[in-house]
Amino acid sequence: MRWFFLRFSFTRKRTSICEEGGVVHEVVERILKASIEEFSEKGYAAASTNSIAKKAKVSKGLLFHYFKSKENLYIECYKHVLSWSKKKFEEFAKQVKNEDFFEFIKKWGLQKITLAIENPVYSKFLLTVTNLSPKLRAIVLGLIREALLDSREILLEKIKSVKLRRGISEEDALKFITAVFDGVANSYLDQYRDKPEELLNNLERIMVESDKLMDLIKFGILDREPQQLHREV
Amino acid sequence: MRWFFLRFSFTRKRTSICEEGGVVHEVVERILKASIEEFSEKGYAAASTNSIAKKAKVSKGLLFHYFKSKENLYIECYKHVLSWSKKKFEEFAKQVKNEDFFEFIKKWGLQKITLAIENPVYSKFLLTVTNLSPKLRAIVLGLIREALLDSREILLEKIKSVKLRRGISEEDALKFITAVFDGVANSYLDQYRDKPEELLNNLERIMVESDKLMDLIKFGILDREPQQLHREV
Repeated sequence: MRWFFLRFSFTRKRTSICEEGGVVHEVVERILKASIEEFSEKGYAAASTNSIAKKAKVSKGLLFHYFKSKENLYIECYKHVLSWSKKKFEEFAKQVKNEDFFEFIKKWGLQKITLAIENPVYSKFLLTVTNLSPKLRAIVLGLIREALLDSREILLEKIKSVKLRRGISEEDALKFITAVFDGVANSYLDQYRDKPEELLNNLERIMVESDKLMDLIKFGILDREPQQLHREV
Repeated sequence: MRWFFLRFSFTRKRTSICEEGGVVHEVVERILKASIEEFSEKGYAAASTNSIAKKAKVSKGLLFHYFKSKENLYIECYKHVLSWSKKKFEEFAKQVKNEDFFEFIKKWGLQKITLAIENPVYSKFLLTVTNLSPKLRAIVLGLIREALLDSREILLEKIKSVKLRRGISEEDALKFITAVFDGVANSYLDQYRDKPEELLNNLERIMVESDKLMDLIKFGILDREPQQLHREV
């Protein structure tokens, strides 16, 4: 598995580690890799900074020199994984920029599943947010919201080309679609988390199911008479 | 908060604790209550059977006499919470049995949110499933699937009264609706987990949003021409 090291900045007031040069970069990267593994394996509370230092082959002192606290270390890990996932989305958006809105969404859903399978440690790490203290969770949820802003921009731009029913805003439609696709992607991941190869073998079936899902999103589930067509919400 | 003790049975071959009478019942109930609290607070890996025994005011020996292993204890906790939630669904289904399918679903979504807020420990406990070992998670996911079977029966019976578009099966429609409502309920809970009172104050707004959501589910998001009405899937 390849490890991506993208952008790195502290939330607290202090010099960014990036500015300290290449050698430090390498050490910090090693600590992050080890931390993400440890957190995803044990969750936040049970993760041990002792094992992280050991895995990263650094002293515990150096670890705390760079990251100050376990909490801060966790936050930096989250930023790292989010910026990886942001980069992935941007690469994807460039690749499929000529597809229509619905194809774009469908393919991104599929891409998310594939990424989660190729990076089981990352996707498991992202799940650790459910067992945090209220304070730490609030910080992390803030980071997630921020990370989603850019992709929302791209999607809102794309959805403008879709002729929506009267009374449905682009925001509403987007919220609906992402909720449906997130829900379904999560249920696939739950189902296959421990047998990823099976999921990869079933991608074709999942594509067919996605088409069905998209049809439900576009046209709803109800049979309706022509006079109901332009029913106001 | 009231604690419900409903049904209790071991997965392994051994005499059910239920058969051993009232005093044992009370001890077992106390251990379960303490365990659910501990697991929901720390997650499975970090939970300590020492603190559970202490909280439940029993010896660690007695705890292991009844529950054999930490793994088994966790499984029994899960069964306990699932049978509580099953009982809640059955009570609800009886109360609103005269409502049409869509009202039924909407109200159940709302009820689930209310229950999660009234029982924060239970709802947090249910989330601990994301950080289990593959083997333990497989067992728990099996329990969840089994628990959902009865409510599925009720919903499938109800959805028969809905006139669905051609090509959409009752199973498909139900899968779609539950995915949408689960996704949305989860996003509310994520948003408000640490300020439940706010969510309870906003129930009216959530009802309005649910109506909008139901409209999207029923009629989809696309504007369409009459000739597209009976489009085959």
